[in-house]
Amino acid sequence: MEHHRKALHVPHQFVIFAGTANPELAIAIAAEVGVVPGACTIERFPDGETSIQLQESVRQKEVFLVQPLSPPANEHLVELLAMADACRRAAAARITAVVPYLGYARSDKRHGRREPIMGRMVADVLEAVGIHHVLTVDLHTSQIEGFFKIPVDTLTAIPRLATYLSKDLPPGVVVVAPDAGALRMASEYAHRLDGRVAVLHKRRESGTGTQVTHLVGDVAGKTCLIVDDMISTGGTLASAIEALLKAGARPELTIAATHGLLVAGARQKIAQEAVKKILITDTVAGAPEDWPPLHIISIAPLIAGALKRLVEHRSLGDLY
Amino acid sequence: MEHHRKALHVPHQFVIFAGTANPELAIAIAAEVGVVPGACTIERFPDGETSIQLQESVRQKEVFLVQPLSPPANEHLVELLAMADACRRAAAARITAVVPYLGYARSDKRHGRREPIMGRMVADVLEAVGIHHVLTVDLHTSQIEGFFKIPVDTLTAIPRLATYLSKDLPPGVVVVAPDAGALRMASEYAHRLDGRVAVLHKRRESGTGTQVTHLVGDVAGKTCLIVDDMISTGGTLASAIEALLKAGARPELTIAATHGLLVAGARQKIAQEAVKKILITDTVAGAPEDWPPLHIISIAPLIAGALKRLVEHRSLGDLY
Amino acid sequence: MEHHRKALHVPHQFVIFAGTANPELAIAIAAEVGVVPGACTIERFPDGETSIQLQESVRQKEVFLVQPLSPPANEHLVELLAMADACRRAAAARITAVVPYLGYARSDKRHGRREPIMGRMVADVLEAVGIHHVLTVDLHTSQIEGFFKIPVDTLTAIPRLATYLSKDLPPGVVVVAPDAGALRMASEYAHRLDGRVAVLHKRRESGTGTQVTHLVGDVAGKTCLIVDDMISTGGTLASAIEALLKAGARPELTIAATHGLLVAGARQKIAQEAVKKILITDTVAGAPEDWPPLHIISIAPLIAGALKRLVEHRSLGDLY
Amino acid sequence: MEHHRKALHVPHQFVIFAGTANPELAIAIAAEVGVVPGACTIERFPDGETSIQLQESVRQKEVFLVQPLSPPANEHLVELLAMADACRRAAAARITAVVPYLGYARSDKRHGRREPIMGRMVADVLEAVGIHHVLTVDLHTSQIEGFFKIPVDTLTAIPRLATYLSKDLPPGVVVVAPDAGALRMASEYAHRLDGRVAVLHKRRESGTGTQVTHLVGDVAGKTCLIVDDMISTGGTLASAIEALLKAGARPELTIAATHGLLVAGARQKIAQEAVKKILITDTVAGAPEDWPPLHIISIAPLIAGALKRLVEHRSLGDLY
Amino acid sequence: MEHHRKALHVPHQFVIFAGTANPELAIAIAAEVGVVPGACTIERFPDGETSIQLQESVRQKEVFLVQPLSPPANEHLVELLAMADACRRAAAARITAVVPYLGYARSDKRHGRREPIMGRMVADVLEAVGIHHVLTVDLHTSQIEGFFKIPVDTLTAIPRLATYLSKDLPPGVVVVAPDAGALRMASEYAHRLDGRVAVLHKRRESGTGTQVTHLVGDVAGKTCLIVDDMISTGGTLASAIEALLKAGARPELTIAATHGLLVAGARQKIAQEAVKKILITDTVAGAPEDWPPLHIISIAPLIAGALKRLVEHRSLGDLY
Amino acid sequence: MEHHRKALHVPHQFVIFAGTANPELAIAIAAEVGVVPGACTIERFPDGETSIQLQESVRQKEVFLVQPLSPPANEHLVELLAMADACRRAAAARITAVVPYLGYARSDKRHGRREPIMGRMVADVLEAVGIHHVLTVDLHTSQIEGFFKIPVDTLTAIPRLATYLSKDLPPGVVVVAPDAGALRMASEYAHRLDGRVAVLHKRRESGTGTQVTHLVGDVAGKTCLIVDDMISTGGTLASAIEALLKAGARPELTIAATHGLLVAGARQKIAQEAVKKILITDTVAGAPEDWPPLHIISIAPLIAGALKRLVEHRSLGDLY
Repeated sequence: MEHHRKALHVPHQFVIFAGTANPELAIAIAAEVGVVPGACTIERFPDGETSIQLQESVRQKEVFLVQPLSPPANEHLVELLAMADACRRAAAARITAVVPYLGYARSDKRHGRREPIMGRMVADVLEAVGIHHVLTVDLHTSQIEGFFKIPVDTLTAIPRLATYLSKDLPPGVVVVAPDAGALRMASEYAHRLDGRVAVLHKRRESGTGTQVTHLVGDVAGKTCLIVDDMISTGGTLASAIEALLKAGARPELTIAATHGLLVAGARQKIAQEAVKKILITDTVAGAPEDWPPLHIISIAPLIAGALKRLVEHRSLGDLY
Repeated sequence: MEHHRKALHVPHQFVIFAGTANPELAIAIAAEVGVVPGACTIERFPDGETSIQLQESVRQKEVFLVQPLSPPANEHLVELLAMADACRRAAAARITAVVPYLGYARSDKRHGRREPIMGRMVADVLEAVGIHHVLTVDLHTSQIEGFFKIPVDTLTAIPRLATYLSKDLPPGVVVVAPDAGALRMASEYAHRLDGRVAVLHKRRESGTGTQVTHLVGDVAGKTCLIVDDMISTGGTLASAIEALLKAGARPELTIAATHGLLVAGARQKIAQEAVKKILITDTVAGAPEDWPPLHIISIAPLIAGALKRLVEHRSLGDLY
Repeated sequence: MEHHRKALHVPHQFVIFAGTANPELAIAIAAEVGVVPGACTIERFPDGETSIQLQESVRQKEVFLVQPLSPPANEHLVELLAMADACRRAAAARITAVVPYLGYARSDKRHGRREPIMGRMVADVLEAVGIHHVLTVDLHTSQIEGFFKIPVDTLTAIPRLATYLSKDLPPGVVVVAPDAGALRMASEYAHRLDGRVAVLHKRRESGTGTQVTHLVGDVAGKTCLIVDDMISTGGTLASAIEALLKAGARPELTIAATHGLLVAGARQKIAQEAVKKILITDTVAGAPEDWPPLHIISIAPLIAGALKRLVEHRSLGDLY
Repeated sequence: MEHHRKALHVPHQFVIFAGTANPELAIAIAAEVGVVPGACTIERFPDGETSIQLQESVRQKEVFLVQPLSPPANEHLVELLAMADACRRAAAARITAVVPYLGYARSDKRHGRREPIMGRMVADVLEAVGIHHVLTVDLHTSQIEGFFKIPVDTLTAIPRLATYLSKDLPPGVVVVAPDAGALRMASEYAHRLDGRVAVLHKRRESGTGTQVTHLVGDVAGKTCLIVDDMISTGGTLASAIEALLKAGARPELTIAATHGLLVAGARQKIAQEAVKKILITDTVAGAPEDWPPLHIISIAPLIAGALKRLVEHRSLGDLY
Repeated sequence: MEHHRKALHVPHQFVIFAGTANPELAIAIAAEVGVVPGACTIERFPDGETSIQLQESVRQKEVFLVQPLSPPANEHLVELLAMADACRRAAAARITAVVPYLGYARSDKRHGRREPIMGRMVADVLEAVGIHHVLTVDLHTSQIEGFFKIPVDTLTAIPRLATYLSKDLPPGVVVVAPDAGALRMASEYAHRLDGRVAVLHKRRESGTGTQVTHLVGDVAGKTCLIVDDMISTGGTLASAIEALLKAGARPELTIAATHGLLVAGARQKIAQEAVKKILITDTVAGAPEDWPPLHIISIAPLIAGALKRLVEHRSLGDLY
Repeated sequence: MEHHRKALHVPHQFVIFAGTANPELAIAIAAEVGVVPGACTIERFPDGETSIQLQESVRQKEVFLVQPLSPPANEHLVELLAMADACRRAAAARITAVVPYLGYARSDKRHGRREPIMGRMVADVLEAVGIHHVLTVDLHTSQIEGFFKIPVDTLTAIPRLATYLSKDLPPGVVVVAPDAGALRMASEYAHRLDGRVAVLHKRRESGTGTQVTHLVGDVAGKTCLIVDDMISTGGTLASAIEALLKAGARPELTIAATHGLLVAGARQKIAQEAVKKILITDTVAGAPEDWPPLHIISIAPLIAGALKRLVEHRSLGDLY
C-alpha cells in the first residue's frame, strides 16, 4: 500500500507581480533578485472598475505583490485587494504584499473624535482577502505593525540616507524634527551623523486657539538637517524652514525623507533658496527628475535583499 | 440589591449618512423617511486619501450609509469602508450599507481564468469592517446575495418601470434580452407587459473564433423593448439595436434598465433615431438632464419604504 | 548551535480517501493517478450517526476527499464534514474536497423570499471544518465559486461530451437550452458542434398565473440536442421534449448533461421514443446500466489529471 | 436637527419554528409559552435536498428553532443549518437552537485514534451558520458545553424523573450506572432517591483482549434502578440487566433515561421479564405507545419555562 | 396568528462587576452611577488557578467589568478573560471591559526585533473571549486604539489634573516631556497651563553606544512641570529630574501622571528634595497614603460619567 | 520566462524554545531529539509584565514552545501567549505548543452555574495568538481535545507508569479511582496490571447536604493502587486513603499520577505511614527530591519521540 506515498519533489517557487502604483520599482526589485515580474494584465473597465488577470500560474507558489499605497491610494488599495483575491483563488501558497509606502498610515488614531482609523482599516481588508505577510519601509509610526495580525517586516531607509548625507553634513549638525512624531527619527539620524536634535511642535495659543509652531532647541548659526518619514504637501516642511530661518539657522538647509509623495504644490513650497538638498527614495513613483536639489536613492536593493532572504527562509536581521 | 436593575428607557434611534457617490439620492431617501441625513464631513486630504468625520453621535444607534458603488467604484468603495470603520469605532449598534447600485457585480465568476471575483471581494471587505446588513436594488445576478454572509435585501425597480412602460407599449411587445444573462429579467418584464421574449447571445464563430451576436426569437415587424439591469458603455445595447433592426424590428425601440451608468460614450452609441425612449432610475448619480428620450424614475420612495420597515422591524415582503 | 537546524528531508506526500457517495469513481481516479485510496472505515452507528476512522496517517500530508454531494445529499455532506474534521485533527497539511457533483448548487439565490441559500451554506460549513480547497465539475451556475473563500477549481466535461457527440450530430444541429440558466452552456456546445441555439423559458401567464414554457428560436425539421448541467427528475427535460416535438423538431433527440442524478422517475419521463441518445458522466453513482440510450463517459481521467497537477503544484490551465 | 432622532417604539418579539424532527414537542412547547409555532414550509426536493421557506417575518426578532438531532441525525442537522441560514438572511436578531437531544454528543473524544470529534464539529457548523445560543437537555457529558463558544443552557430532566420514581422506589435503592460515564448521573439520582450506587465498567481481558463488563458494588437482593442519559440500541442496558441479575439483584428492575432513541431493536433487548418500568422523556419523537412498561414524561413544560425566561431576559437559575 | 407577536416589555439593564485589581475604584464608580457592583465570587484555587462565579444573572444585560491591568498584569488579565467568558456563557448582551490602566501598552512596537507586540496580543485575547467594548484612560500611545477592532473609548485625566495644577503653577511654566513619546502630552498640558515645552530624548552616544539623555529647550531658572502618562519605576523621571536640575531649573519641581504604578522603588527614586508635588489618579490601586507630596485625584467621576452615557446610549463627546 | 521559477532548496527546519515553567524538561526533550533549545530571553519588567525576545530566527520554521501550564498558571499562560505572538510576528511557519500539563483542564464544565469554562477559554486564546497545534499528556478529561479546533495530540504516561508499577504490585491488585472521573483511567491501569477496580464517589447526604465519599467495590484485605491524572492539593487522595483504610484495605498503598502539582500542603496530607510509594512524572517542575516514597519518571523520552515524529511528518500511532 506504500505506492501512494511516493515523494513528489516539488521545488519551492515564487513569483513577483507588479501593481500599477510603481512598476519601475517592481522591475528594479525583481532585477536585483535575478528574475522578471510575472506576467499579469491590470486594466480598467470603461466604467473604471479594476480588472486583473494573472498570466502565469501561482499554484502553491510564494507570491509577492509590489504595490505602494501612494496616491491615488484608494485605487492602489483596491487593485492590491483584487490581485490578492486572484492569487488566493488561484491557490497561491503564500501572498506577501510588498508595500514600500503604506498609505493611510497617518490615520493611526482618533483623538476622541468620530473618525475611522484608516491604518487599521487597511490592515483589516488586506487580511480579509488572504494576504499572509507585509513588507514595508519606514512606517509613519512603528505602532502600525500592531494594526496587523499577520507578520510585518519593516525595513528602514535611514542608514542608507544617513550614509549618503554624512558626506556633506558637518559633525554637530542640528537634526530637526518638524513635529513631535518625528523626534525619534531625528534622534536616530543624529546618532548616525553625530549631530544634535531640535524639535518643532504645534500648540494652540491660549486665547485665540490658533495653532502656532514652537521651536524647542537651539539652531542659531547652525547647519540644519530636517528629517521626516515623508514629504507630502510640503506644508510641515515649509513651516519648519520658516521657523528655522527665523531662529537664525544657517540658510543651507538639507531635507531627508523616505517617502517623496510631493503632492499639492509641495515643490513650490519647498523650493526655497535656503534649501540646498532634498533626499528621498523611490518608494513612491513620479518624483520630478528636473529638480536639481532633489536626489533619489533607490530602495530596490534593500527590498530585494529582504525578498531574497524571505524566499530562502533566512533571517532579515542583518538588514536592520 | 434591586436598585441597579433599574430600567433605562432607551428609545431606538437611527441615522442616515450620505456618502459622496449620490448625496441627492440620500437626501431624497431621508426626506421620504421624514428626516435629514446625519451631519458628517467627507473630504480628501491633499494626497487624495479619504477623510471622514461624523458630526453626530451614532452610539448604539442603527446607521444607514447610503453609497452606491458607481464610478469611480474604488473611491466610493473605500469611502464606504471608512464610514463603516468610523461608525463601528463610535459604537454604532447596527450598520446597514444602502448600496442601490452594487459595483463590481459583473465580476461574479472566473471562467477558469486566474482572476479575482470582485463581487465576493467587495462582500468580504464590507463584512471585514463590520457592516451588518446590505440593502441594494436589482443585482446583476441574484446569486450575488450568496457572496454575503450578512443579510442582503434586494429590492427591484422592475414593477415601477414596467408600470411606467405599460402606458406606451402594446400587448404583444417583444421584450428583448440583449444577452443570455438578461433572459430572466426579460421574462419578468414580459409577464408584466403581456409580451413575448427574444434573446441575443454571443458566440464565437467556429473557424475564426470572433464573437458574433445571434438573435433567437422572432422580432420582424414587432415593437421591441430591450431590458437590462444596467446601461454601462452602451456597447451591448448598440449591438442589440443593430441586430433587432437588421432582423426587421419596428424602428421604435424602447430601452429600460435599472442602473444608468452611461460611461464611455454610452449616449453616443445609444442615441439612434430608432430609439424613442430610455428609462432608468437614479441609483447612479449624474445622468444627463438634457437628453429628451431619457426618463429617470426615482428609486428613493422604494428605498425609503424599505428603510422605514427596517427601523420598525417590519417585513419587506410587501415591497417585492 | 547549528546542530538543531539540520535539514529534515520530508518528501511531499498525499492520500486520496473515498467517501461512500461514489467509491467507484474514487478508485478510478486513484488508479489514473497511480495509487489506491487510503484505508479508512466509514460506518453508521446503529442510530444512523456517521462513524469515521482513518486507517492511515495524514500527518502533514495533502489529503483529497472524494465525495460528490449526490443524493442523499445531507448524509453525504455530513460524512464529508466528518472526514475533514478527522483529517484536520490528525494534522493533515492541506485538505481538498473533490466534489464532482456539488449538491445544493441549485439553491443559489433567494428571489426575495425567506429561504436559505444552501449553496452558500454548504460553502460555509465546508470552510468551517477546515477544508482548504474544492475541486468540482460543471457547477450549476459559475457564480457558486464566489460562495467560497477558499480556492475552487471547476473542471468541465463539455469538451469531452461535445467530442463524443460530434460523431453523431450534423452541423447546424440546434442546441436547446431547456431553461434560461442553460443558455450559456448551450452556446458553448453550439460553438463546439457548429450548431445554432434555441431556448425555452418559463413564464407565468398573465391572468391565470400558471407557468408555461415558451420556445424561443426555430427548430422545425431540425435535429436537436438538449443540454443541461444535470438530469434530476427529468421534469424540465420532459417539458423540453414536448415543446420541441410540438414545434416540429425531428423526432431524433439527443440529450447531454454532466450530472446524471436520475431521481424520482426520471427514466420514465425521458424514455420516449423520440429520445435516441442520452449522454452523462459518472460524477453521480448509480446510473442504470441496462438502459440502451444511456451512455456514461467517465470523468475520472479529467479529475485525475487535475489531481496530478495539484500535487505537483502545476497549473490546471491546459485542462480547461 | 432633532427630528431624525425620534424614538421608534419597537416591541421585542419572538417566533418559534418547528423542524421536522419533533414537531409535536415544538407545538407542546409553544402551547406552554402561549403561542403557536411560526408558519414555515419544510420539504424535500425530489432529489432529497432540504427545502425551507419561512412564511412569516423574522426581521429583528428572536427566533427559536426546535429541532432535536435525533435519528436520522444528519438529515435533522442539515435541516437545522438550513433553517438558521434562512433566519440569518432574513435578518433575525437572535437565533436560538432548541436541541433537546443533541445528537453526536457521544462522539466527544478521540482516544488517540484518527477520528473526528463530531460533537465539536456539530458545534462548529451551528456557529458557522450564525446560531447565537443553544438550549439543550441532559448532555451526554457536561464538557460538551465547552465545544461551543456561544452560550449553551443545559436543562436537566433528572429532578422530574426522580420525583416520578420516588413514588415507587424504596429508600436504599441501588442506582446502577451502566458504564463509567453514567456514574455522576447515578450519584445525582441516588442523592435524590436516598439510594446507593453501583457501577459497571468495561474492561478488556488481559490475554484475550475481549471486553467484559465488571460490576463494582453490591446489589445482591437489592432493588435496582439503572440510569443513563439515553437509551439507544439498548445494548449497554441489556448487559447491565444481565450483570445485575447474575449478581443477584431483585428481578424488579427500573430504568430511567432522559432520551429514548430506542433504535435497532432496543425494545427487544430491554423487554425482559425483570424490567418492570422504563421512564423516558419526549426529547426524541416516536417512542412506542403500546409498550406497557414504558412511561413518557413530557419535557415541554421545562423547555417552555426556559423559553419564557429567555424572552423576558430572566435568569434560568430557578430551573436547575 | 398574531398572538405570538405580543410585545415583551424588556427594560434595558446593566451590571457592574469588580475584578480584584481595583475593587475600591469599581465601588466608587458604581456609587457615582448610583448602584452597587454585582455580586460575584473571585477566588484562587489552591493551585493558584482563577475561579469565578457570578452571583447574579447577566442574561441579555449590559455588563461592565472594571479591571485595570495593573501589576500583576498577567493575573489581572487572565481574571478579566475569565470574567468575560463567564458573562458570555451566561448570555450577557454586551460586555464592556472598563480598563482604566491598560497594562502592556508600552509593548506597542517591535523595533525590528523578534518580540511580541503585547498591546495587540492583549487586544486579541480580549476580543477572543467576546468583549464588545473597551473603556480606558490615557493610553500610552493613542495608536493603541487601533490594536482593537472593537470600539475603544479613551478618556483623559489631563483636564482634571491641569485644572488642579493651574492653581499652583505660574504662567510660563516649562512643561517637560521626559522622553520623545511624552511630547504630545506635554504640548497639551502647556496649552492648558499657558506654559512652554521642553523635551528630553535618549540617544546612543556615537563611539560608546551608551544611551545618554539630552535636554532640548531652555529651563534655566524656570519652574518646571514634568508630565508623563504613568510613573512606573520612576527611572525616567529620576533621569529627567537630574537633567533639569543640572540645566538650572528651579528646584521646585512638580510631577503629573495619570497612572501611578510606583513599582520597584519608584518612591525612593522620586522622593528628592526638589520634588514638591506629585499628582496621580487612582486608576491603579495601592498608592502610598503616607507620602506628603503625593496627591491622588479620583478618576471615578470621569469613568462614571462615561458609563452613564454608555448605558443611556448618549455621546461621550462632552467628556473629552 | 522560466528563470524566475528556479527551485529554492529550502530545508525544513525547527526550533524548540523553553518557557520558564519547566526549562529542565525542555532541555531534556531537546537533548533526546538531539538539539539544544533555541536562544530566547524571557524576563519580567520591573512592573511584572512579561518580556520576550527570541535570539534566533524562526522565519518559516516549525517552532515548539515547551510550557506546561503549571502554577502559577496565569503567568505561564500569558508567557506562552507572548512567545507565540513573537513567533507569529517573526513569521514562523508552524507553532506547536508543547504543554505537558494543561492547566485549567479541571474547569471543563459549568454545572448550570454562571462560571467560565476555563479549559475552553485557554483553547480560545491559544488559537487567537496563532498556535497551530498542541501536544499534551494525560488530559484531565479526554473531551478537552474538543475544546480546540486545532490538532491536539495527547500522549499518555500510563503505559510507562504501569510497566514500572507492575514490578511491585501483585495480580489482583485493586485499582482505586478516587472519584467518578478517574474510573476510566483506573480501568486502563487495571487492564495493564491484571487487577480489579473500585471507585469512590462523592454524594451530598440527603438531609444535611454535606458531601461524603462512598466506596463502591470490595477492598478488604487487598493491595490497593490509587490512580489519578494529577495530585494537586492531595485532598482527594487523603479522602481516598482514609476510606480505603477504613474499608480494610491492606495498609500498603501505592499512588500513581501523571501530573505532580503537589500544592498547598499536599505532601503533608499524603505522607502517611500506609502510603509506600508515589509515582509521578516530571510534566510539572519542582517536585521534592527528598521524599523517599516519591518516584519521578521522566516524560521527556515520550515527548521527544512525538516531536521527532512531528518534524518528520510521521504518525504518532506507535506511541499510543
